[in-house]
Formats: sequence, structure tokens, C-alpha cells
Amino acid sequence: MIKILSAEFIGTFWLVLGGCGSAVLAAGFPEMGIGFLGVALAFGLTVVTMAYAIGHISGCHLNPAITLGLWVGGRFEATKVIPYMIAQVLGAIVAAAVLYLIASGKAGYSLANGLAANGYDLHSPGGYDLTSALLTEIVMTFMFLIVVLGATHRAATPAMAGLAIGLCLTLIHLISIPVTNTSVNPARSTGPALLQGGWALEQLWLFWLAPFIGALLAGLAYRWLAPDSES
Amino acid sequence: MIKILSAEFIGTFWLVLGGCGSAVLAAGFPEMGIGFLGVALAFGLTVVTMAYAIGHISGCHLNPAITLGLWVGGRFEATKVIPYMIAQVLGAIVAAAVLYLIASGKAGYSLANGLAANGYDLHSPGGYDLTSALLTEIVMTFMFLIVVLGATHRAATPAMAGLAIGLCLTLIHLISIPVTNTSVNPARSTGPALLQGGWALEQLWLFWLAPFIGALLAGLAYRWLAPDSES
Amino acid sequence: MIKILSAEFIGTFWLVLGGCGSAVLAAGFPEMGIGFLGVALAFGLTVVTMAYAIGHISGCHLNPAITLGLWVGGRFEATKVIPYMIAQVLGAIVAAAVLYLIASGKAGYSLANGLAANGYDLHSPGGYDLTSALLTEIVMTFMFLIVVLGATHRAATPAMAGLAIGLCLTLIHLISIPVTNTSVNPARSTGPALLQGGWALEQLWLFWLAPFIGALLAGLAYRWLAPDSES
Amino acid sequence: MIKILSAEFIGTFWLVLGGCGSAVLAAGFPEMGIGFLGVALAFGLTVVTMAYAIGHISGCHLNPAITLGLWVGGRFEATKVIPYMIAQVLGAIVAAAVLYLIASGKAGYSLANGLAANGYDLHSPGGYDLTSALLTEIVMTFMFLIVVLGATHRAATPAMAGLAIGLCLTLIHLISIPVTNTSVNPARSTGPALLQGGWALEQLWLFWLAPFIGALLAGLAYRWLAPDSES
Repeated sequence: MIKILSAEFIGTFWLVLGGCGSAVLAAGFPEMGIGFLGVALAFGLTVVTMAYAIGHISGCHLNPAITLGLWVGGRFEATKVIPYMIAQVLGAIVAAAVLYLIASGKAGYSLANGLAANGYDLHSPGGYDLTSALLTEIVMTFMFLIVVLGATHRAATPAMAGLAIGLCLTLIHLISIPVTNTSVNPARSTGPALLQGGWALEQLWLFWLAPFIGALLAGLAYRWLAPDSES
Repeated sequence: MIKILSAEFIGTFWLVLGGCGSAVLAAGFPEMGIGFLGVALAFGLTVVTMAYAIGHISGCHLNPAITLGLWVGGRFEATKVIPYMIAQVLGAIVAAAVLYLIASGKAGYSLANGLAANGYDLHSPGGYDLTSALLTEIVMTFMFLIVVLGATHRAATPAMAGLAIGLCLTLIHLISIPVTNTSVNPARSTGPALLQGGWALEQLWLFWLAPFIGALLAGLAYRWLAPDSES
Repeated sequence: MIKILSAEFIGTFWLVLGGCGSAVLAAGFPEMGIGFLGVALAFGLTVVTMAYAIGHISGCHLNPAITLGLWVGGRFEATKVIPYMIAQVLGAIVAAAVLYLIASGKAGYSLANGLAANGYDLHSPGGYDLTSALLTEIVMTFMFLIVVLGATHRAATPAMAGLAIGLCLTLIHLISIPVTNTSVNPARSTGPALLQGGWALEQLWLFWLAPFIGALLAGLAYRWLAPDSES
Repeated sequence: MIKILSAEFIGTFWLVLGGCGSAVLAAGFPEMGIGFLGVALAFGLTVVTMAYAIGHISGCHLNPAITLGLWVGGRFEATKVIPYMIAQVLGAIVAAAVLYLIASGKAGYSLANGLAANGYDLHSPGGYDLTSALLTEIVMTFMFLIVVLGATHRAATPAMAGLAIGLCLTLIHLISIPVTNTSVNPARSTGPALLQGGWALEQLWLFWLAPFIGALLAGLAYRWLAPDSES
């Protein structure tokens, strides 16, 4: 079990370091910057790479909403839910700390430049309000879990599941970075928020509540759509 | 059958929310925007993700032109054609409504900013005329169906079909967004047009006619090229 | 044989329409344009999509240099070499004509805006001279054929060959568009050059000679590296 | 053995020519340039293409840090470590020379424009200091090797390993080009540094030391996480 939880820790560390790291270090680089498109690709590729690297060890959830949705969908044991979530959140916090260390090696960097925390209203990249943020995070997490549950279904193509799920996270970022900076993952939101503090902590509740609602609904929906008790 | 049609509904909902959503919310974001390249990727990834998530449930058409082409090509039963198309159009309409709700959570948004509807002449992104629009939509849908029919052929590589078909939609957008904002899918055109109204509804006929002509020709052509009655 | 040659015709038509089409229509679109990165992706995806759609019909060469390299490498019958090349060049010419029809549906377009023909010196996008152009096209085609011969080798992973070969064409464009607008494919160069005329026809010799030299050397090299008489 | 080392030579030649070539020739092209995102994709695709082309010949390391990590992880024979590394460095040097020949075919090019060498402090693209550079290269190489060791593990999906590993290199570039221009590969750093001379040679030590530390730690860590003596 310690090895399985270590895998989840390493994987979520990579998701936050890679996704938020590309946003903080490379997205806004003058002229050559990777923009939202590069950040979307980076988040997705953290999942693609980990899926093939540790999928055979822990299943590669990297996200408390995925762990919840898989459990509700009847694909994951109840006793492992909390340990998985703790390992994920710890990985995300360590990643945010490492990212802060790297980012602060550039003259003039301060936390005011941000660590890619999630937010709404004044802290939404595009100025979207609370209702848009809630709706977006619920719908995006719902569809994310539909893809996770569908692509890992017994009748699907197992070799391609990691690619499909990772590219789904890319797609979700292509749509929703302007709204909330995209979470769909409470661990990913918690790491940067703890270091950032202030508004990021005050708005953190939404990025636990909305992904959990979306995952819960998707778990129930997919279970009805295509039962798969053995996979 | 209700589960199969629900899968088509969810899948087309995702295609329109993801593709048009990335265009409306993220394409033109100042400096960091994803541009046509990001929108092209988003449309393609909606298909890639759904192919692996619901392909084993409904075949993942998400597009009345694909349903028509598969039927003409001898791969789909006539009795399911109309139900599939209805589910697809309904999914697209709901997606356009959800997208409108999210987009309107930003101060200053109005429908005049658009919902990524398709158009020609004055409503072509690059100012292309009716002839270019017709030719483009016919040729693009023709080639799309060649890829759909070819990649799902008995002699092809089934595990890769979803990736090849989704990336084909990305490719089609890379070429033709400037001409018509790219349809090749009557359901995708109908959702935003219904909310947009006005010119979008007046020009909607082309985005049913041209994709259907392209799909019909491709169904006949591929059937001659490589018969595949059993797949 | 007519069906096989039709497949090569359709495939090369798609390669030129998709690759050059994205360059002519979408690359330089104000603010939202896809740039060289989008064009590189488009060229690669024409090959990825066709590999899975017609690979099981004709082997999906789409390129006289590939046909030559496969023959030199001992993987393709001599009697089919010329028919394949003719079908490829015809497909490329028709694609250039269709692209011209679409592009001219925009007010103000003239052939002076180009059809993405290949060139050097004054007609190199970045102003590279004849020596750089020759060296680049030889080395790029050499490496392209190494990937084609390697990824379709009996000991390789057949399901992934189409993806690897298509993405190799994307990579080649990411490197060399500034030098020659990237050919590595005499058919792709011939289609636009015939419509463009003038300088494009005068410089066309290089885009037959250099890819053929690169393909010839790669065929010999790979044959030594990993003989594969049966695959 | 000469064929195996030739494969490593060709593969590393391609990694440096493709990755550094895209950076030197295409990244900063006015308006249409591919930026850091295109360079990240190019580096990754050199590995994807070679993995499927020569993976069945040499295992496709292309990187002394990978060779070291695989040996420490118990997956590679000690006697081959030094020959592999020599072939890799030679391939990288020849690639840098060919890139210089191509690049100098443009009027006004001089070595001051660079060959995409790696650096820190004044020679970090974003002005990051020595500590950030060390930490970044160690952590990135550590995670790269976790993916290499995981994706090629007996229990993983062999057909997808080349794609996952190549896309991991893309991801690493999306994060860390601004910090060190991204190495994680001593051979890739050595080729351009030898031609560049001066500061690039003076800073080269870091791009051997840090990747080797990261690879060593990953070899030990993955061995504990998931032993795989037979694969």
C-alpha cells in the first residue's frame, strides 16, 4: 500500500509541477510563450505520461474527484478513498513548494506573480462570476469522469485509456482556463492555494465542492449508462 | 436504445460545448489565447475522448453526416438513422444553451459576441463567398467520411480509429475555420444557430446540405474502394 | 490495381489540400492564425488520417520519395513504382486546383498570394540559399525514410506506424518550413508549382532531386541496419 | 553491436537536429514562428519517431542520462553503458555541425545567434539562477526516468511506451525552456556547446551533473517502487 500511495504522490506532484509550472514559467514568456494552449497541453501530458508510467501500480487517479467518481461508479474500494486523497493532496503541496523554489530563482519574482491558483470573479483570468465558475467546474468534471469511466470500461480499448483521459484534461483546459484557470481537481487547487494564501484559500471551497458534485453525478450516470461491475 | 441515444446526446453535447466553447471563451483571449489552432485541437479532442468513452456503446457518431455516410456505406441500419440524428441535434442545442449561460457570466458579453455559429460571405471569418463555402464543406465532409469509413474498416487498426477520426476533425478545422468557421456537422451548426438566430438561421441550410452531399458521395466512393459488409 | 491507385490519388490529394490549404487559408489569419506550428500539424495529420484510412488498401505512400525509398529498401515491387508516382502527382495537381478555387472565393486573392509552393533563395520563407535548401531536403527526406522503414519493420509496432510516420512529417515541418517551405515530397511540390508557374517551376528540380537522393541513401542505410525481407 | 551503436548515433543526431533545429530556424520566425510550444513538440517528436523506428534495434535511449538510469534501475547491461554514451555524444556533435551548416545559409547568421545551447544565469532564457537550474534539471530528469522506467515496465503497455516517453520530453520542455533552455540530456547539451564554445562550454558541467543525479535517484526509486528484473 505504501508503494501504491507513493505512486499517487509522485503522479499528483507531476500533475501540479508540470501543469502549474508551465503556466507560471512559460505561458507568458515574451513573444515565444506557450500561452493557454501550451498550458492545456502540459496538464494533459502529465496525465498521459503518468498513466503509462504508474497506471499499473496505482491506477493513476491523481485527483480526489476521480477517486470519488470511480468509487461512486462502482470501480474502486471504499477503504482506499481517503488514503488516495491524502497522498494526492500531499503531492500537490510539495509540487507547489518546488515550483515556488524554481520560480523565485528569477530576479523580481514574488508570490504576487502567482502560482496558477484557481479563482472566480476578480480572480478568474477572464473575469467570470461565481455562477459561471460553479457551472463550468461541475460540467467539466462531469464530462471528465464520463471519459475516465468510459475509457477504462471493460468493453473499451485499455491501451488507449491513458491517452484519451490525458487529452481530455487538455481539452478541458482549452475550454475553461479563462473561467476558473481550470481545476476539476481539488488537489491541484489546494497545493498552489496553500502557498498563495489570501483570496486563493478563501475561494478554495468551490474547487472541492464543484468537482465533487460533477464526479458524483457522473459516477451515477455512467453506472446507469453502461454497468461494469468487473472491470 | 435509450442508453445508446443518451450516449449520442452526451457525446454531441461535448462536441459542441468543447469545440464552440473553446472558440467563444478562449480563442481570442488577449495575448494568451489559443487561436484557431487551439479550437481545431479542441474539436478533435471532443471526438477522441468520446470515441474511447462511448464508442463501445453507440459507435460515437456525434454527427448526422457521419450517421448518413455510414448508412450509405452499408455500415449502419436504416431504422436507427433518424433517432440518432435527433439525439445529436438535441445534444447540440443543450450544449449551446449551457455555453451561453457560462459565457454570459462575464461582464459585457452579449450574443453579438457570438456562439461560434457557421456562416459564409459576410459571416465567413475570412470573408469567403457562397461557392467557396459550399465546395469546402462538401470536400471536407467527403474526406472526413473517407477517414471514418476507412479507419473503422475490418482490415484497419480498430484501437487507433478513434484517434485518427478525432485528429481528422482537428485537421479539417486547421484548413477551413477561415472559410465557414468549419461545420462538416449539421448538428454542430444547428445548436449555436438556434440561439444566435438571424443570419445564422438563414445560412443554416448550407450546413445541412453540403455535409450531406459530401457524406453521400463518400459512402458510395468508399463502398466501391473497399467493400466491408461485415464490419 | 485501379482501386489501389485511386487510394494513392485520394491520399495525396488530401496531403496537398490539407497541408498547403492550412498554409494558404489559415496560417497568416490576423491574430488567430495557426502559424507554422499549425501548418506542421496539418501536414502530419493528413498522413496520420490516411494511414489508418487507406493504409490497408495501398500502403499509403502519398509521396514518390517514399515509394522510391521503400523499393530501394527492398519493401516494394519495382513494377508498381511508376504507377504509384503518377497517381500521387495527379492527386497533388487536382488538390492544388481545388485549393485555388477555394482560395479565390475571397475578395482580393490572387496567385501572387501563393499556393504554398516550395522554394529557395528569394523564395525561401527565411531567405536560405541553395546549399542550405539542398542539404535540408536531403537530410530531412533521409530521416523521414528511416522512420518509414523502421516503423513499418516486421519487428516494430504495426498499429503505431501511421502515427509515428505522420508525426515525423509534422516534426520535419517544424524544423524546415523557414528553409524551403518543406517538401520532402516531389508530388507535393509539383501540384502548387504547376498552378503557380514562373519561379516555382524553375526551382522544382531541387524538390525532385534532393528527396530522391535522401530516400535512396535511407533505403540503402536501413537495409544494412536492419534487413527485413519479409515485412 | 556496430548496428546498435549506429542506431543510437542516428537517433541522437535526429534529437539534436530536430529539437535544436526547430529552435534555431523556426521558433522566432516573425509572426508565424513556432515559439517554445513548437520547440517542445519537436523535441518530443524526435523521440516518438525514433522510438518506433529504432526502438527494436537499440532500445532508443538517445540520452546518456537514460542509459545511466536504465542501468541503475537494473534494466541495462553495464558493459554497454559507455559505448552507448559515446555514440550518443557523437551523434549530437554531428547534428550540431549540420545545423550550423544549414543555419549559416541565411544572410546575417552568426554563431552569436546561437545553436540552442543550454545555460543558466545570464544564459538562461528567462534569467533563472544556478540554484533554479540545478533543481529544475534534477527534478525534470528524475521524472523523465520515472516515465521511461514505468512505461517500459513489463506490466505496462509496450506499444504506447514510445509515445508516452516522447510526449514526456515535450512536457518537460513546456515547463523548463525558460529556466535552462531544457537539457535533461548531456549529449544534447554537448553538441551545441562544442560549436558555440565560450560560456556554453563553461556551463556544460551542470548539464552532465544534474541529469545524472536525477537519473540515478530515479533508477533507485523506481526499482523500489516496482521491481522488474526481467523486462
